[in-house]
Amino acid sequence: MENSNNNRRNFIKKAALGGLMAVSIPEILSAAMVSSVHKKNPLNRNDIILFQGDSITDSGRNKEDNSFNSSSALGSGYPMLAGAKLLQKYASHNLKVFNKGVSGNKVYQLAERWETDCLGLKPDILSILIGVNDIWHKLNGQYNGTVEIYRNDYMALLERTKKALPKVKLIICEPFAVPGVKAVDGKWYPEFYAYQESARKIADQFGATFIPFQKIFDEAQKQAPGDYWTGDGVHPTLAGAQLMAQAWIAGVK
Amino acid sequence: MENSNNNRRNFIKKAALGGLMAVSIPEILSAAMVSSVHKKNPLNRNDIILFQGDSITDSGRNKEDNSFNSSSALGSGYPMLAGAKLLQKYASHNLKVFNKGVSGNKVYQLAERWETDCLGLKPDILSILIGVNDIWHKLNGQYNGTVEIYRNDYMALLERTKKALPKVKLIICEPFAVPGVKAVDGKWYPEFYAYQESARKIADQFGATFIPFQKIFDEAQKQAPGDYWTGDGVHPTLAGAQLMAQAWIAGVK
Repeated sequence: MENSNNNRRNFIKKAALGGLMAVSIPEILSAAMVSSVHKKNPLNRNDIILFQGDSITDSGRNKEDNSFNSSSALGSGYPMLAGAKLLQKYASHNLKVFNKGVSGNKVYQLAERWETDCLGLKPDILSILIGVNDIWHKLNGQYNGTVEIYRNDYMALLERTKKALPKVKLIICEPFAVPGVKAVDGKWYPEFYAYQESARKIADQFGATFIPFQKIFDEAQKQAPGDYWTGDGVHPTLAGAQLMAQAWIAGVK
Repeated sequence: MENSNNNRRNFIKKAALGGLMAVSIPEILSAAMVSSVHKKNPLNRNDIILFQGDSITDSGRNKEDNSFNSSSALGSGYPMLAGAKLLQKYASHNLKVFNKGVSGNKVYQLAERWETDCLGLKPDILSILIGVNDIWHKLNGQYNGTVEIYRNDYMALLERTKKALPKVKLIICEPFAVPGVKAVDGKWYPEFYAYQESARKIADQFGATFIPFQKIFDEAQKQAPGDYWTGDGVHPTLAGAQLMAQAWIAGVK
């Protein structure tokens, strides 16, 4: 707490010197998406939307609850916040929003449960956010992966998905981290950039919408310090989760 | 589930006959606020925002968590959804958002815990949503209240609040119900209208912003049936909670 207050004070000092500029999310998105596919996914009636990923997506959802559209099933993170907005705004669309993120997952663990937790649900829109554990668990000695494994596993997963669900609209979310906040130190770099670049290239290759979360979090730090947006550099606070939800929705409609 | 599908089918049939008209929340608010104070509460730097009320406000918050700005402390309802949006949008404001709603509360129960759960927190913006249990618990025989008790208790609570916190900005939320959905049957009416009218008059009298939730839920049923917005006629679904959050924010800024 004291640490956080200090950070805030230092931040405010810096911000006062540098001048606080508000940059809107649509501006960030259009800037960041230039090099990407930059296509939107129009929502259709009866669409099934599935969020997949690791703990950032999981966000404490109740895994006994196999339903959709409720905060119990969606957790307390960006899938729930994005879902809430879509369900309210497009109330007449009869949307079904699922979250099947599982804490700790790397790409190969998505693959292990893909039949049940993705293909069987027949999503019309599939959003994936994966990659932080692929490097983090390597840095802390729990995992032996490389960026090549990440890329190859990810591409194989998407090929399998496209084969089973040829019409699915893909949203690839950029794995992100906030350097200097707790878990995220110099050891992550430059290697983590290669994971992010892979996600972006895979999005291009598969015609997916790319959500540039790193850019979003970088820009957000002009408004408030890193630990306002994420408690440990990886997991977003409520404010950070709303930032993600807004960016995600801007990529959809 | 089957029941819900039937409702949806009937609704869609009716909607197809009647024509689906999208009405935006700002339009609803400006229409509904004409007879009310219709003033906004500008947010200031370092503002403390407090949500007070019953289970609709409580929304499963972790009562061991006395902090602010987290989904654990804010629950899974409109205070968390409104809080998430404010914390993201006004990131440089250093806002603190608290939720101290308690399931089952009527006005006199707010009064019993007001020192700790309101005055001691010194909110700059105080939002109250109370009234459904004041009639519901009477209808199911758990409580002996009347609309006069509701009104008198509510006014006494606000007088006490204004005395302790002369500068506090008040937001009075209209108690609401969705007739025809489970718990809410003909026995609620016309008596419930008198509770709603009291809340509105009290808002006028105390110079509070009034959030016309009944109107919001009535209009929302042009988009999707009542059970899309509330599971039992009283407690909102995630979509209903987002509807409330959006209306609440429109009343603030």
